[in-house]
Amino acid sequence: MGCKKLEGEEILKKWRKIRPKERFPITVILDNIRSAYNVGSIFRTAECAYISKLILCGITPYPPHPKLEKTALGTTNLIPWIYFEKTVEAIKVLKKEGFKVAVLEITKQSIPIQKIKPEDFPLALVIGNEVTGVDEEVFAEADLIIEIPLYGEKESLNVAVAFGVAIFGLIERLF
Amino acid sequence: MGCKKLEGEEILKKWRKIRPKERFPITVILDNIRSAYNVGSIFRTAECAYISKLILCGITPYPPHPKLEKTALGTTNLIPWIYFEKTVEAIKVLKKEGFKVAVLEITKQSIPIQKIKPEDFPLALVIGNEVTGVDEEVFAEADLIIEIPLYGEKESLNVAVAFGVAIFGLIERLF
Repeated sequence: MGCKKLEGEEILKKWRKIRPKERFPITVILDNIRSAYNVGSIFRTAECAYISKLILCGITPYPPHPKLEKTALGTTNLIPWIYFEKTVEAIKVLKKEGFKVAVLEITKQSIPIQKIKPEDFPLALVIGNEVTGVDEEVFAEADLIIEIPLYGEKESLNVAVAFGVAIFGLIERLF
Repeated sequence: MGCKKLEGEEILKKWRKIRPKERFPITVILDNIRSAYNVGSIFRTAECAYISKLILCGITPYPPHPKLEKTALGTTNLIPWIYFEKTVEAIKVLKKEGFKVAVLEITKQSIPIQKIKPEDFPLALVIGNEVTGVDEEVFAEADLIIEIPLYGEKESLNVAVAFGVAIFGLIERLF
């Protein structure tokens, strides 16, 4: 095809064309994520997805934090974020503000992301710990449990990758 | 909701139910990816997505490799892979086998992943270097250039996250 790659200012111009006037009506709750690298990566992806807010809960590392900044690549100042000690408290605040709460996890009740409808927004997406997942008391507050359909033999996705797949899948449901 | 999380064998059962009889008709070409951690993460995601094959080219690290195995989490034996010194040679082989070649990159000509149609498969997805992207000679062989629509102010996605978003977005186009 011999096409030219876009660089710097050109990429910015292309992005500006498709950026919506307001941030997408999705807030993401990180429930006791362990790895600062994963949290930094989630900041970077969240900025690209132009979501409303990140809420970091429990043991989740938060800025300023050298390891987190390493993978966030300068995005911690570009996306609104807040820290809550208890995930359930954050969820209760969002529910009062009219958010539906969706936990990302594979369970008997979980539905594929593709089944989310425009009326499910504003949506609070809860992402659980890398090993133990989301706490039972958080499940008890959830309106929906959603999953990324996986087709392999054995493994699960890395939490930062799963977040990326989920968030861009959810944004698609808004159009 | 108080639902129970699935564990171990239960998760496997759920996955087996939705696993297709054959791997999805997507082969992924890694064109000079630098980081072994990113490559390992791509192996892990590729296994979950049940794609046909990974082709590792140029400087891309390949198994056995300790850093790669660390993020691949045991998936390097679960997904067919092969190494080619030259990316363009791999592309030529796949084209002879009837694959359409799609480069993942933001350019003036790129179309959103969502525009890929079932008739574009079998598809070879080319993922470029973390900093320099895909080589010009690879672009010259591409049938399509696809992009993940990004809405943020500044940054781009990490290559392993971008791969995850792209591959699950492509699989959705098959249904």
